[in-house]
Amino acid sequence: MSRYNVQILPAVFTPMFDDGSIHYDKTGAIYQRCIESGFNGIFLNGTTGECMSLTAAERKKLLETWIACRRKNTNPDFKIFVHIGSANLYEAADMAEHAQAQGANGIAMVSTFYFRPKTLGDLVDQCKYVAAAAPEVPFYYYNIPSLTGVNFPLTAFVEAAIREIPTFSGLKNSFHDLVDYQQCLHYTKDHVQMYWGTDEVFMMVYTAGNRNYVGSTYNFMSSIYFKMLDAYHAGNLKKLTALEAEATSIYRILNDYNSLIAGKEIMRHIGIDCGPVRQPLKNLKSSESTSLLDRLQKTSFFDFALIEKPLKI
Amino acid sequence: MSRYNVQILPAVFTPMFDDGSIHYDKTGAIYQRCIESGFNGIFLNGTTGECMSLTAAERKKLLETWIACRRKNTNPDFKIFVHIGSANLYEAADMAEHAQAQGANGIAMVSTFYFRPKTLGDLVDQCKYVAAAAPEVPFYYYNIPSLTGVNFPLTAFVEAAIREIPTFSGLKNSFHDLVDYQQCLHYTKDHVQMYWGTDEVFMMVYTAGNRNYVGSTYNFMSSIYFKMLDAYHAGNLKKLTALEAEATSIYRILNDYNSLIAGKEIMRHIGIDCGPVRQPLKNLKSSESTSLLDRLQKTSFFDFALIEKPLKI
Amino acid sequence: MSRYNVQILPAVFTPMFDDGSIHYDKTGAIYQRCIESGFNGIFLNGTTGECMSLTAAERKKLLETWIACRRKNTNPDFKIFVHIGSANLYEAADMAEHAQAQGANGIAMVSTFYFRPKTLGDLVDQCKYVAAAAPEVPFYYYNIPSLTGVNFPLTAFVEAAIREIPTFSGLKNSFHDLVDYQQCLHYTKDHVQMYWGTDEVFMMVYTAGNRNYVGSTYNFMSSIYFKMLDAYHAGNLKKLTALEAEATSIYRILNDYNSLIAGKEIMRHIGIDCGPVRQPLKNLKSSESTSLLDRLQKTSFFDFALIEKPLKI
Amino acid sequence: MSRYNVQILPAVFTPMFDDGSIHYDKTGAIYQRCIESGFNGIFLNGTTGECMSLTAAERKKLLETWIACRRKNTNPDFKIFVHIGSANLYEAADMAEHAQAQGANGIAMVSTFYFRPKTLGDLVDQCKYVAAAAPEVPFYYYNIPSLTGVNFPLTAFVEAAIREIPTFSGLKNSFHDLVDYQQCLHYTKDHVQMYWGTDEVFMMVYTAGNRNYVGSTYNFMSSIYFKMLDAYHAGNLKKLTALEAEATSIYRILNDYNSLIAGKEIMRHIGIDCGPVRQPLKNLKSSESTSLLDRLQKTSFFDFALIEKPLKI
Repeated sequence: MSRYNVQILPAVFTPMFDDGSIHYDKTGAIYQRCIESGFNGIFLNGTTGECMSLTAAERKKLLETWIACRRKNTNPDFKIFVHIGSANLYEAADMAEHAQAQGANGIAMVSTFYFRPKTLGDLVDQCKYVAAAAPEVPFYYYNIPSLTGVNFPLTAFVEAAIREIPTFSGLKNSFHDLVDYQQCLHYTKDHVQMYWGTDEVFMMVYTAGNRNYVGSTYNFMSSIYFKMLDAYHAGNLKKLTALEAEATSIYRILNDYNSLIAGKEIMRHIGIDCGPVRQPLKNLKSSESTSLLDRLQKTSFFDFALIEKPLKI
Repeated sequence: MSRYNVQILPAVFTPMFDDGSIHYDKTGAIYQRCIESGFNGIFLNGTTGECMSLTAAERKKLLETWIACRRKNTNPDFKIFVHIGSANLYEAADMAEHAQAQGANGIAMVSTFYFRPKTLGDLVDQCKYVAAAAPEVPFYYYNIPSLTGVNFPLTAFVEAAIREIPTFSGLKNSFHDLVDYQQCLHYTKDHVQMYWGTDEVFMMVYTAGNRNYVGSTYNFMSSIYFKMLDAYHAGNLKKLTALEAEATSIYRILNDYNSLIAGKEIMRHIGIDCGPVRQPLKNLKSSESTSLLDRLQKTSFFDFALIEKPLKI
Repeated sequence: MSRYNVQILPAVFTPMFDDGSIHYDKTGAIYQRCIESGFNGIFLNGTTGECMSLTAAERKKLLETWIACRRKNTNPDFKIFVHIGSANLYEAADMAEHAQAQGANGIAMVSTFYFRPKTLGDLVDQCKYVAAAAPEVPFYYYNIPSLTGVNFPLTAFVEAAIREIPTFSGLKNSFHDLVDYQQCLHYTKDHVQMYWGTDEVFMMVYTAGNRNYVGSTYNFMSSIYFKMLDAYHAGNLKKLTALEAEATSIYRILNDYNSLIAGKEIMRHIGIDCGPVRQPLKNLKSSESTSLLDRLQKTSFFDFALIEKPLKI
Repeated sequence: MSRYNVQILPAVFTPMFDDGSIHYDKTGAIYQRCIESGFNGIFLNGTTGECMSLTAAERKKLLETWIACRRKNTNPDFKIFVHIGSANLYEAADMAEHAQAQGANGIAMVSTFYFRPKTLGDLVDQCKYVAAAAPEVPFYYYNIPSLTGVNFPLTAFVEAAIREIPTFSGLKNSFHDLVDYQQCLHYTKDHVQMYWGTDEVFMMVYTAGNRNYVGSTYNFMSSIYFKMLDAYHAGNLKKLTALEAEATSIYRILNDYNSLIAGKEIMRHIGIDCGPVRQPLKNLKSSESTSLLDRLQKTSFFDFALIEKPLKI
């Protein structure tokens, strides 16, 4: 929990060697970057981490590596939230159990996305089943309909989950239905945490009371968000608008290249090489990489991305 | 244009007799309510007005009635925006031409929704065709994918429409893709007006720079929006949050009954009886109407809905 | 009802002048073509007829013209089925009433497609409302989810409609769920007629028991369907397969150009000029028209399309 | 390849103990049933086999068990097609390699369904990547949009796959676009095999030239399909229609319970207990199981399901 009472968790990339195997030793550098970026926690093995292109064994080893990193840095307050969702609920439950044994601070899961839940009750049931495998770890439902094809009203889901799942602690939401999300915020904020997953509208939901965030751009441009918060709380709406306009220009570039893939490319350029993406995602061609950087250099992106000294948490 | 530089247009209901025929003489009362609510313009024949259940002849006569009302009240500054979209582009163009002849301040259209545009270029072409029938009237594209099934990126559309359509003046947007909408706001705000159509998140988009609104709840609860704006500009975020929470409770009730139908029912209860809705919409049963009002009475809804003295524009 | 007990209704094109106004005098030529093609009935103002780009007044006048044509040709057995669906149920009911007054043999309607039915019950209700305006005319539901966005299971719909709508007589189906359609055929064939609307799989559904068809290609290539039926009933499966392969080659070409638009172009080339399509559909460019014909000439299309002597009904 | 030149592969269930672990020893009984049902091959680890609820290790061991079963029964002609699709392409490629090493006769894969292909080219690329891991095994693309959310035109896909993937051998299709499927049949039948996956319309596609089938009902009611083929080839269309009507009654019951789950329940009742389904699928409640069997007993289902003597292949 940092300034202005916001909790921001970078959704970390999975570092890989050129052949696609995992480069576990990069974890320390990514950890350092998080700290320098002003954060004290991460969201591990999420969509940004290419979860569904990793095996359960790799996902477990990544968690172990991060837990070891936290220990090595004697930073017991560093929060490690880990995504354990899978098309296979047996593997999901297995990863949940492992997460508890390792000492994760929270587990999140997407719904199954091949044999999909047909009713809200089905979704609650499958969350309950997995949550029960880690009875001491806060459980979050990760809502991302564009990838799972599963889309239930969040307010109704949260009300049911609070009743049915003892460890239910909130949402990680990557969907645009603001009316429903706003309802969730108002009805449930005393009970659960709502993590917002669309970085591009960080301030919109902040003004609606949202205080928890997970996303990929926090890996490399955290300072723009802190500057926005500063401007907002100083009542400097003109500066806030200018910052939002600048951020919007940057997002537009990232989205032209698939922001996950562009993000991994950017990590390389700011000195934390996380390697390529795995199939079925496709690495940028050399010419695309060049044009991505050229376009970013015409914005103030690198003012935000290159940190001279650590931000204060 | 009223306080805080916002332009809010109530999307007015179409007043009907019990047999579903149009009660044109109610226009004066609806006009008075708009003025008392703090507005100086309307959005006519929109979804709230049940556009697609009206004939082109009825829609034209409604416009004529409103133009006459403006004249009678010697209020030449009152803005009349009229929706002229239809599944039938010939009727759309005909209504556009009529709108210009009558002196409407703006025309808006949804895309065709049976023979739908397959490409963004198709959509621009059909807008261009209709806009050309009213070459002196500002043209707005009304984006409402949930009803039309047509969904193109707005930023790309606006960029193309600015190039292709001389009278293109902006959007009326009822879709939730905030990332795209925010881009539109930043890229196009100097050129066009962006009308936001989801009342429930009024303040979220306000903080992102949105200043133009069209919606149905402005017909009967305008004062809550003005109070929110007051709180925001006074820097009273605590009060703003409380107002948003209250509004959210009200929206939840309205949405449980289909907010268009509930809205028409509410109009009756605040003294401006607009009659029933037409098929295929279904009027509330007596028991539903009772429970709607009971639930609203447990909120502060009627404090906002019953206006003792006109709000200052 | 013609050979092999099949009932095939060409979905006729709406003849237009170059400016898009309707060329009513062409009706006689289209009627002659139907007779020569082996049919004794039509489906008027359907999707092929660009229904949603016509006004209600034009649709009524087209029906009157066809009724007059039937009278003039003293062919009282000629069946005129007319589509009266609209986004506007008031206009739909009005057209239904008019169809009865004129002596149409059947009315069909699509569901509303802006204010769409949310439940199967809503859909039945709106069909009931319109059917009641023509209590002596057989009523058909026209299922075309790709254009209306409305998609309910047909078997459940038919069972409900038989109970609720006195004049309910069947379906005109343009959707691919064969499992559901086959169920309908088996459960309901003694009660209602199922018209199949995807010409390309004429024989597949014939072998499953379907005997009623509506479609656009019957306007210009009826003889290939009769040849298929002949081959099938003669047990000549090799010839049937060859005919289906040939038909498939033709469909592929038509579909490359939008088969409705290509169909209207073809009518011109076989001597029954029906003019252009209306906006938002787009007429073929000259080069497209040329390549369409070139490609068709490489098939046996014109052997089927150019009729030397009338087919026997 | 059996009578009438059809190739039918039962999509076998995965036998499980009550705790959900896999009951590998049941493989022999399932094999015997296939032989007695008139088949000489299977489709392993498909949707019916609950592929996405199994780990890669389990899927590999199931293949090994079937290969051993084939050897033990000295039936080298028995065809084992195995589905190796996964959300994780690394696991898919690993399973493909394993399938080749084991001696599978074909591999099939669904597209990735979390990080989905965005273009047809993306889909071809990912198939090519996996196919390359088993360069000596025929590769099939398994098209099932209702579960993967991926839906490209099959004709275009097949044309590209033939060019790009040396081992490309055809499709396993579970989608209803008959126009596209029929095109595929006509254009590609000399080059590739098209396996049809919707048992309910077995005869419809047979009459259109389809000869290859994969499905779950072949596990327990093969004889009805052979009777249909007999009737068709004897020219006894009346009997064929009666058989289709009967089959339709049976499908309707199965589909009321989710046919995969009902199928596993039926296996128990015909003496080949395959145990429960895994989460997230839900086993029938006791009352549902009873009503399923009661309803089936009112049909001739068990005449088809209980085989007294082996059918002749």
